[in-house]
Amino acid sequence: MSVYRHPYKEADFVIRHLLAFDDFCRDNALDELNSDFFQVVLTEAEKFAAKYLVEQNRQGDLQPARLIAGKVVETPGFASSYRAFVEQGWSSLSASEQYGGQGLPNILSVACNEIWQSANLAFSLCPLLGQGAITAIERHGSRELKQQYLKKLISGEWTGTMNLTEAGAGSDLAAIKTRAVPEDDHYKIYGQKIFITWGDHQMSDNIIHLVLARLPDAPAGVKGLSLFVVPKYLLDEQGQPGIENDLRCISLEHKLGIHASPTCVMSYGDENGAIGYVIGENNYGLHYMFSMMNHARQGVGVQGLGVSERAYQVALEYAGNRVQGTDKAGNSIRIIEFGDVRRMLMLLKSATEAMRALCYYAGFETDKKNAAADNSELARQSAARIDFLTPIVKGWCTELTQELVSLAMQIHGGAGYIEEAGVAQLVRDARILTIYEGTTGIQALDLVKRKTLLDDGAQAGLLFAEIEQTLTQLEKSPGCEAMYHSLNTALADGRAALNWLQVNPTQSSCVAAYYLQLWGYLTGGWLMAKSQLIASTLLDNESSDSDYLQAKLVTAKFYAEHFLVRTNTCLASIEAGGDTMMSLSEQQFFSHVN
Amino acid sequence: MSVYRHPYKEADFVIRHLLAFDDFCRDNALDELNSDFFQVVLTEAEKFAAKYLVEQNRQGDLQPARLIAGKVVETPGFASSYRAFVEQGWSSLSASEQYGGQGLPNILSVACNEIWQSANLAFSLCPLLGQGAITAIERHGSRELKQQYLKKLISGEWTGTMNLTEAGAGSDLAAIKTRAVPEDDHYKIYGQKIFITWGDHQMSDNIIHLVLARLPDAPAGVKGLSLFVVPKYLLDEQGQPGIENDLRCISLEHKLGIHASPTCVMSYGDENGAIGYVIGENNYGLHYMFSMMNHARQGVGVQGLGVSERAYQVALEYAGNRVQGTDKAGNSIRIIEFGDVRRMLMLLKSATEAMRALCYYAGFETDKKNAAADNSELARQSAARIDFLTPIVKGWCTELTQELVSLAMQIHGGAGYIEEAGVAQLVRDARILTIYEGTTGIQALDLVKRKTLLDDGAQAGLLFAEIEQTLTQLEKSPGCEAMYHSLNTALADGRAALNWLQVNPTQSSCVAAYYLQLWGYLTGGWLMAKSQLIASTLLDNESSDSDYLQAKLVTAKFYAEHFLVRTNTCLASIEAGGDTMMSLSEQQFFSHVN
Repeated sequence: MSVYRHPYKEADFVIRHLLAFDDFCRDNALDELNSDFFQVVLTEAEKFAAKYLVEQNRQGDLQPARLIAGKVVETPGFASSYRAFVEQGWSSLSASEQYGGQGLPNILSVACNEIWQSANLAFSLCPLLGQGAITAIERHGSRELKQQYLKKLISGEWTGTMNLTEAGAGSDLAAIKTRAVPEDDHYKIYGQKIFITWGDHQMSDNIIHLVLARLPDAPAGVKGLSLFVVPKYLLDEQGQPGIENDLRCISLEHKLGIHASPTCVMSYGDENGAIGYVIGENNYGLHYMFSMMNHARQGVGVQGLGVSERAYQVALEYAGNRVQGTDKAGNSIRIIEFGDVRRMLMLLKSATEAMRALCYYAGFETDKKNAAADNSELARQSAARIDFLTPIVKGWCTELTQELVSLAMQIHGGAGYIEEAGVAQLVRDARILTIYEGTTGIQALDLVKRKTLLDDGAQAGLLFAEIEQTLTQLEKSPGCEAMYHSLNTALADGRAALNWLQVNPTQSSCVAAYYLQLWGYLTGGWLMAKSQLIASTLLDNESSDSDYLQAKLVTAKFYAEHFLVRTNTCLASIEAGGDTMMSLSEQQFFSHVN
Repeated sequence: MSVYRHPYKEADFVIRHLLAFDDFCRDNALDELNSDFFQVVLTEAEKFAAKYLVEQNRQGDLQPARLIAGKVVETPGFASSYRAFVEQGWSSLSASEQYGGQGLPNILSVACNEIWQSANLAFSLCPLLGQGAITAIERHGSRELKQQYLKKLISGEWTGTMNLTEAGAGSDLAAIKTRAVPEDDHYKIYGQKIFITWGDHQMSDNIIHLVLARLPDAPAGVKGLSLFVVPKYLLDEQGQPGIENDLRCISLEHKLGIHASPTCVMSYGDENGAIGYVIGENNYGLHYMFSMMNHARQGVGVQGLGVSERAYQVALEYAGNRVQGTDKAGNSIRIIEFGDVRRMLMLLKSATEAMRALCYYAGFETDKKNAAADNSELARQSAARIDFLTPIVKGWCTELTQELVSLAMQIHGGAGYIEEAGVAQLVRDARILTIYEGTTGIQALDLVKRKTLLDDGAQAGLLFAEIEQTLTQLEKSPGCEAMYHSLNTALADGRAALNWLQVNPTQSSCVAAYYLQLWGYLTGGWLMAKSQLIASTLLDNESSDSDYLQAKLVTAKFYAEHFLVRTNTCLASIEAGGDTMMSLSEQQFFSHVN
């Protein structure tokens, strides 16, 4: 598989121009920060990825993590890459300075995450999960827990995991059975967790498990869950990893993809009980989990972006080299010259750019929220925007990724079906993205119920109004006619969908998936429209990078013609409602075979 | 993975009612044949699949064919299954009686193929490929070749392969370099072929390779290709397999799926030249290949159907058993009760039924053609219909299959990503279907250029007129309003697409993929509409199977609401034309990283 290159012009365009990051820095007196500095950091990140991660991606696929004598042994080479990752400070970019982090904006982490995930999805899951543990402890942990764990987690010397799922409790966490029994200053944890990503490995000195469990007197359901810190090695008096805790990985899953990322069945307390420390208050575990959900879910959306960019690059390289046929003059034709291959490449390119715009835009809202005064109106607005966009970033980007990696394979023809070409691994790896951190169905329900109907469509309305403003600009801009037309229609579709849902709220769960897709195409289109306007203006003012900017105009137009138009079908399926889909009896589903 | 069950009511409904098979038998004096007889045969086919193929499907995935000391050794157990397949006569169903075949209609083979492919895609590829060799020799071979090879190929004692692709010649067969040098009564073949499905194995006494190669004096390009019979073992005086021919499998591909189907690199003539016998006339090889293309391509469409049906059954079983959450009364809820899971199951069910209707409909046209007098108007009409539908059956069904197997995995949540659940294998296996026997892009070009523009849209117009007739019936039928509305709109979209293409023929290759998709949704919808009308009538007349028939009404309506509406987006992308997608320079595709 080809060498991966960071799409640095894209990252720069989005951060510098679409997000107007330098204005943000100036307004918030972040004098040492600007887009130029970001470019320097991202260039270093690309170098790191090229040196440590890109090649190991395939190796991880061929030599998955293995469980040997009770210990998970990761893919050869991963440990030294991880060490370098930590030493170069990549794990602490936007972490709190108070605990040794670098305090840089979230948007820089997002842009770096895209690079890690393009380079090596299985590897990058390890630091991504650690981020969740850091956030939980930092926001909700006691001072003691923070002092004991944060610095090492932030530096990356220790890694972190999230333990939610059990065999009988997947999307429904109310069914969690893992128990926590109070004892002295700690708890004893007993139970089994499944699907624990990077639940064990030998790359770090300690692994800090965050575990959802139930206290003896806890209420039933999700309001009876507490969150515990359960370290692999208990800390000694000096705060160093000491004796082993009573927990272990008892098996690894054989998965379709991300082979190098060990997916563990973790058993806690088989002997005397695993020692754990409660985070925050008893029975607030799910609440704490949700407080980091936005971050993790947006992170998965960015994984979709990263894999899609890689798929685009792999397909582009193949299409530019693969000769097939000759023209009338007898010259060889490369398949990039064929209309249908162009179509697939443009689908890859334009969708990936729309995803990047959306992922970065959503990620930047966190910086806006952090920069605003606590409890201010600005902070509230950003929080509401983040809440609304998160299921879209997660659900829409990762679903679209499935289509894109499949197109990348299709461009390869038969060669793509052979594992050595590398694109098959992208297809396999990407398939987890619509499932973990909440399936697309869960994202869709979140968007339609909590984020739309619960606030009477207020946040949706605010976005509609902003899209309307962009339309006003588009209308006056030559060359933007196709985008104006498509965005205008898509906006009308969005409004009609919202109206329909407000009239038919009881059918929302049946049509939620289409509503999510509609929002994805619409917000992606909105940001592509803004990009088109910006690129037009930049082209008028300067000619320094006209190749890139002209391409942006074309890509935005293509998005309008081929993706934005899909809102129509989403709306049609929404307006069909849930009656037909709910009207078969269970017996009737089997009636063709019985 | 669950046991597979044949959807016998579906097969019966389509054959007996939608295709009115019994009328066909009566009209053609096929007295011994009728739908009841078919049901008996299909029940036996299901028994065979259950006994020999279903379980071995997973085994084939885990224990792929291997190349050992120059010989391909197939998955353990496959050889005895293949022997039973041959002994029970499954390979000769619709083959010519003159050479020991059973002379049954093609539609019965299609229905049986669906069963084999639902049960075990990798296994069923072997007899499917043999079919191509039989057709080529029967239609174009000399009397001697027929006498030597047909009987054993038809009985299945010998298997057949198709050797087209070379490393530098995929979709572009003009680039084929394999040479054929005349010598005595035969030719010596020299060259290397790739992607040869079941190119070697130990399941049969001989393997008859059909090889495209170029004679020394042949014209350049596709008009210089001849087709040769190249047996693995040369026949002795008694017509029995004798000494080994100079050919071998030199390596096997590591593929994403269909692991049990050996994909061989075949080398011919490394020592003294492989002995081959020309089929028909010199330089007509591609022509002969194309004469069996419809059959093979429709066969791949049926593979999509088979895999989709299996995916539906697997997902349905999971959804009906998997408990997640409790209702307000504290009772467990199974995920089949959730709106979004229902949505996915209905997508699977309705799309699979539409695919089956289309595959069987297209397959039955072959029987109509065969029943008509040679060169009659009826035969010509059926041939034109087959030509038109073939790329739709192949391209649309197999693309839709990708969406459906992915939905089946999604219904499983995290469990689906684990290989043991079995649905991951369906995802991996299915991915080849849009690639082999001509990629979707090739199908789309065939449909738009050869099958539409070349006959000035005549065949398209005939189909439009038949759909119009169905609309007239729908309009008068209570309960068919949603279908009437969707089909009417889709028909208008189809007509608009045809108009656009006739005005803009030079852009056809850019929009061909959308045109193909549009036709797929439209013809699928048309046949679902006819099914809905039939089911309504049957429900009025009898009540014997109201559960199934009521389900058909619902499924047809759901198809109208969720699939037929997609023609709108296809049309929008067609009308956007090719200008945007062709306007980036090659350099600009890379402009974000350079």
